[in-house]
Amino acid sequence: MSDIVRAAVMVRPGKIEIQEFPFPELEDGALLLKVEMCGVCGTDKHTWRGETKQYAGTDAESDTPFPIIPGHEVIGIVAEINDRRKPRLDFNGERLRVGDRIALCPDVICGECYNCRHTFAYPRCEHLRGYGNAFTSAEPPHLFGGWAEYMVILPNAFVYKVPEGLPLRVAVMVELMAVSYNLDKMKEFFTLSGEGFGTADTVVIQGAGPMGICHVIKARMMGAGDIIVTDLSDYRLALARKFGADYALNVNDSTEQERIDFVRSLTHGRGADIVVECVGIAEVVLEGIEMLRKGGIYIEAGNFVETGEVALSPHRHLCAKNIRLIGMTNHPFTGYTPSMKMMQKTADIFPFAEFVTHEYPLAQTEAALLKSMEPDCMKVVIVP
Amino acid sequence: MSDIVRAAVMVRPGKIEIQEFPFPELEDGALLLKVEMCGVCGTDKHTWRGETKQYAGTDAESDTPFPIIPGHEVIGIVAEINDRRKPRLDFNGERLRVGDRIALCPDVICGECYNCRHTFAYPRCEHLRGYGNAFTSAEPPHLFGGWAEYMVILPNAFVYKVPEGLPLRVAVMVELMAVSYNLDKMKEFFTLSGEGFGTADTVVIQGAGPMGICHVIKARMMGAGDIIVTDLSDYRLALARKFGADYALNVNDSTEQERIDFVRSLTHGRGADIVVECVGIAEVVLEGIEMLRKGGIYIEAGNFVETGEVALSPHRHLCAKNIRLIGMTNHPFTGYTPSMKMMQKTADIFPFAEFVTHEYPLAQTEAALLKSMEPDCMKVVIVP
Amino acid sequence: MSDIVRAAVMVRPGKIEIQEFPFPELEDGALLLKVEMCGVCGTDKHTWRGETKQYAGTDAESDTPFPIIPGHEVIGIVAEINDRRKPRLDFNGERLRVGDRIALCPDVICGECYNCRHTFAYPRCEHLRGYGNAFTSAEPPHLFGGWAEYMVILPNAFVYKVPEGLPLRVAVMVELMAVSYNLDKMKEFFTLSGEGFGTADTVVIQGAGPMGICHVIKARMMGAGDIIVTDLSDYRLALARKFGADYALNVNDSTEQERIDFVRSLTHGRGADIVVECVGIAEVVLEGIEMLRKGGIYIEAGNFVETGEVALSPHRHLCAKNIRLIGMTNHPFTGYTPSMKMMQKTADIFPFAEFVTHEYPLAQTEAALLKSMEPDCMKVVIVP
Amino acid sequence: MSDIVRAAVMVRPGKIEIQEFPFPELEDGALLLKVEMCGVCGTDKHTWRGETKQYAGTDAESDTPFPIIPGHEVIGIVAEINDRRKPRLDFNGERLRVGDRIALCPDVICGECYNCRHTFAYPRCEHLRGYGNAFTSAEPPHLFGGWAEYMVILPNAFVYKVPEGLPLRVAVMVELMAVSYNLDKMKEFFTLSGEGFGTADTVVIQGAGPMGICHVIKARMMGAGDIIVTDLSDYRLALARKFGADYALNVNDSTEQERIDFVRSLTHGRGADIVVECVGIAEVVLEGIEMLRKGGIYIEAGNFVETGEVALSPHRHLCAKNIRLIGMTNHPFTGYTPSMKMMQKTADIFPFAEFVTHEYPLAQTEAALLKSMEPDCMKVVIVP
Repeated sequence: MSDIVRAAVMVRPGKIEIQEFPFPELEDGALLLKVEMCGVCGTDKHTWRGETKQYAGTDAESDTPFPIIPGHEVIGIVAEINDRRKPRLDFNGERLRVGDRIALCPDVICGECYNCRHTFAYPRCEHLRGYGNAFTSAEPPHLFGGWAEYMVILPNAFVYKVPEGLPLRVAVMVELMAVSYNLDKMKEFFTLSGEGFGTADTVVIQGAGPMGICHVIKARMMGAGDIIVTDLSDYRLALARKFGADYALNVNDSTEQERIDFVRSLTHGRGADIVVECVGIAEVVLEGIEMLRKGGIYIEAGNFVETGEVALSPHRHLCAKNIRLIGMTNHPFTGYTPSMKMMQKTADIFPFAEFVTHEYPLAQTEAALLKSMEPDCMKVVIVP
Repeated sequence: MSDIVRAAVMVRPGKIEIQEFPFPELEDGALLLKVEMCGVCGTDKHTWRGETKQYAGTDAESDTPFPIIPGHEVIGIVAEINDRRKPRLDFNGERLRVGDRIALCPDVICGECYNCRHTFAYPRCEHLRGYGNAFTSAEPPHLFGGWAEYMVILPNAFVYKVPEGLPLRVAVMVELMAVSYNLDKMKEFFTLSGEGFGTADTVVIQGAGPMGICHVIKARMMGAGDIIVTDLSDYRLALARKFGADYALNVNDSTEQERIDFVRSLTHGRGADIVVECVGIAEVVLEGIEMLRKGGIYIEAGNFVETGEVALSPHRHLCAKNIRLIGMTNHPFTGYTPSMKMMQKTADIFPFAEFVTHEYPLAQTEAALLKSMEPDCMKVVIVP
Repeated sequence: MSDIVRAAVMVRPGKIEIQEFPFPELEDGALLLKVEMCGVCGTDKHTWRGETKQYAGTDAESDTPFPIIPGHEVIGIVAEINDRRKPRLDFNGERLRVGDRIALCPDVICGECYNCRHTFAYPRCEHLRGYGNAFTSAEPPHLFGGWAEYMVILPNAFVYKVPEGLPLRVAVMVELMAVSYNLDKMKEFFTLSGEGFGTADTVVIQGAGPMGICHVIKARMMGAGDIIVTDLSDYRLALARKFGADYALNVNDSTEQERIDFVRSLTHGRGADIVVECVGIAEVVLEGIEMLRKGGIYIEAGNFVETGEVALSPHRHLCAKNIRLIGMTNHPFTGYTPSMKMMQKTADIFPFAEFVTHEYPLAQTEAALLKSMEPDCMKVVIVP
Repeated sequence: MSDIVRAAVMVRPGKIEIQEFPFPELEDGALLLKVEMCGVCGTDKHTWRGETKQYAGTDAESDTPFPIIPGHEVIGIVAEINDRRKPRLDFNGERLRVGDRIALCPDVICGECYNCRHTFAYPRCEHLRGYGNAFTSAEPPHLFGGWAEYMVILPNAFVYKVPEGLPLRVAVMVELMAVSYNLDKMKEFFTLSGEGFGTADTVVIQGAGPMGICHVIKARMMGAGDIIVTDLSDYRLALARKFGADYALNVNDSTEQERIDFVRSLTHGRGADIVVECVGIAEVVLEGIEMLRKGGIYIEAGNFVETGEVALSPHRHLCAKNIRLIGMTNHPFTGYTPSMKMMQKTADIFPFAEFVTHEYPLAQTEAALLKSMEPDCMKVVIVP
């Protein structure tokens, strides 16, 4: 190892620089991770655009503490462990060793607040800190983002061993696949009386970006029937089809009413069982609700920064329609390891190798970020 | 029995007359019910005001076929049965006999459509017809509403024997108590990870009318912790307190923010676990959502006619808050008998006798209806 | 059509004859079905062996009313409908016409008893009558079993249109695929706190007969991780592997402890998440429970006739292990149509064409039955 | 404070001595608790009798490390806190201060093993250590049981503030009330199709000891219909009636068949919805299963030491009956605070003051233990 670490630093919205940092000292229980690959996420794009009030209304709300090292969809190799006091375990209770390939859960929780004690499945910690977002690089040990050669993994951060044989470009999908536990969660609402996510159900995914694609994959893995995807990019829609969508509707080629009618015509006039919002634009919510059957589920997952308001009729959209409108941010901690297992298990069904469409070296991080905002890409990654 | 039957007929919105009808012939499996008591319901008030597009967006949507005999919260005595072909059973499979006291489920389903087959717990029938609402009195056998001396109960209508010893004025609450299965339904969402309706949870009921009171009772029966009720009538709030509400907030004496702050102060700043909308005004939805904790449940139950739109932020109100917003109309068929059993069982805890505050004879039906729209009453009933 | 109908009649246990019956008259709402294919089921084998007390402890318990026409896994073409009074609908509310290919749900319910009203998803009717089992052929219209050229479908029997393009030999699996809703049902127990059937869970299927194979398929469709199957037939285990099982253990080549150890070694010593009993031998229950993780689910589905007792320790097997031991018979009515849709949708993943291994004409029904009891077959069918 | 601490030490099964220990030093995050009251639990009786293999089959299985200080149903006052490094929080995230009255969750988990990460609601830790049971008093700081003047509360042990105004003798019930979350858990199985614990359901509690009584209370709090309790002590059955049981059956005055028939006669021949085993004798399981309706739930909670085996028919008792047989040990961590809130809230409904029937000073601990094994007591407590 050299004695400096290079990282891409967002010094303010719209401005990225490559900076050098000293090699960090590790506190008790901390890890040093040699980053192999790190995705560019929608959150990163929002931060770049200055939309830094994210997850407003949550206790984690705060302005971003620039300068930061972005990047939280991280796969890397354990380069160093401070386990002098006691063994450092991964999330599943297995001891970590130098050389292990691991995935990171970017959300670091306190483990002691009311929410950590009572809603432990999800990162609803009152003192939540997200890698690549909530830590400034201005203070030591600086390295809290994945767009860097090395990262410091805190003692209470959750990491997961990557199974042998799972390709790096597939493993890097794991955080987004864990987000798709939005759909697993719907099992909690399942009954044989026509509630929740049932086998052969009709699922609409609004948006064919990386998050949308992961929901397509998960819906297919879990036994969905017809899957319909909407987006404005033919490039993305074509990939959605490859990943299991039965129907891909380009919103530039159709009216809202035509799309609603299409879903209804597929379902004997009744509407979809589940619609998942993976676009991040407020207005699509109303279209999605109209696509739903009576008693259907709408998962609001994509509007994770403020995008405006929609005019909802409590009578017509909610009460009379018996809708279940579920706001979801984030992923359960328990979703990482099963997601990696399933990606390995279904490697002959899904073309996982096509998910990462663009790789950039650390020096071209800004180009990577700009690329990720264009319609002709799926996942863009940094390879430090 | 005489050979004519008197009934209150709403000939058009705002106009009620007492009319006489011939004694009906009963088809195979039908019952003749001698009405003992019939409530005046919110639906009846909407019809009176000409708000006749109810449950819009549902397949049962239609204008009301005036003239109609209103009234669907009915308790009566079986006066005649056409069971020549086979025994007529109540919903629980018990044979009905002349002289039985029964409660009526006003929603008559076809039993054969897709929704009847797939979401059988609730009356989501594609050909749903509601007593007191969907049948014209212009055609024989005319008597399809409870504001009458007698009613015709169709062969496929569900009725329930009233247990011995349950007073008439308590039994008449049963339809509304079945509506409060909105809360039972939330058990389906329960997990020990902080979802659904848990023991000691904080529950807000918006609105202290009859539907609100029944939700107070049910929340208390099911093990709620603090129950907060809001309304604009001190008369109704006082009754809500008697029926188990811990806190009663008059919206005329407080600002929206004060009420939200009150709920937060009760819950260590976190917000209520469950809020139930029993007001029927669109705007209250936003106040209710603000009262909720992260991950809480909002039950939209009261806006069963169109009342306008609210401006909802998909980001702030839904996604970031991890809310479960559940639209509910109606009641499960299986909710009637347990509700009557529980009202009998908890007769020493709840002052059920105070629920019906005003009784009117058939001749004064219009006065009853007008009374029910004032703030100084709870349940108003017709006693034919 | 000729004016006689030939059918295989089991006149008593161990004795089958081909008999001729008159063409039936159809009552209001009844169908005449031209049988295309009908499976030989485990139930039929039990009846043949004289194990005619089936589903003991249920209200449907009774001795078989010999002579009977067996056969209840039926696919056929609607040959005639008595819909003079009103349209005859399939289970999904769609009108049936002569020439439609349909699948039959063999369980005919009364629709009016307590169980029909309260546990409607499953055939728990107090007056349940099963096609191929509960009707004698001694009385007109005689034709209540699938091992016949034609069957009479009662007005209240549930049938399902077979989708265009689903091969006959695949469609005939539908009743068993509906039985595999045992696994869908486990979603009702799902929570993110480690309960129920989660994505990537380890599933053991005890028994690789037709019912076991259908559970393998369904587990795979629903996102299982490792699937382990046990059986005594290498022939059946090989098929189980083709249908998605990851591991196939022949009980003749291994000890009970070795199999338990194998499951534990796959799961870091913890045990399987779900074990499904599809063998029909009492003793396997203890082996299955030992294979389970703490908090796991054991589905007892295969012992549908009396097979003896097992010595269970309430402390060790149940309480200390936090097991969920779920007794399941039968299938939900709502499971047929989604099963057919999924078989069509996953035709490139599962080798459905290999499920039916032996076809026999009606005249060789006894040979078919004997064949089905040997280890070197999967589904044996009659093609009248 | 004096400089010695007296405690009751079980030096071996059947032998208790009062010993003196030095005042302890507190490690970072530890508390010193001045014990106000500590219950005598069934577990303590088993240990006294030498039945020290408890929760066999669990990873916590081990022989008891005599000498031990028993006692784990503890209420006390915080006497000292080592919070020099950081604030010590209670389970709900509230800072603890000297003088706070707290309840203890006796199960101390590691928080890092697979089970802690994946089934966090319940104490299924692979390294679980129970206060009053798993710690020897032979090593410093010695004081890990509640039958003592003071206890050491470990940094990672969960404690809960006792609400103002909740009497000590009521607060001491909290651990057992948390065990009654066995019933809350059944909400996870609830559907409107007749599964799980529904309003007005018939509940049988086998055993009227302290654990049985707490289940009676909880069933009543949660909206049970008829509650039937069985026991051999008229003393206990009389208390069960006071706490809300509708029917109390003395097993010495009735045959097993009579009790089964009684439950069936109450339920139109169908059987109870839920039966909870709180006796701790293997044989009662079969009686309980016979009392259940088809599709009912049996909760095996009382056999927490090995008590022998029962002969179960997989066909008749499980498969044909569609039973849900749920093994449960222990309580969720999240059950303590709501239990205390509900005991306060329902103080006018339940005679909580009668739950503790016998108090003993520390010097008479052995007498307390012997008393607790007799039929004419409910909860026996030590008041140091």
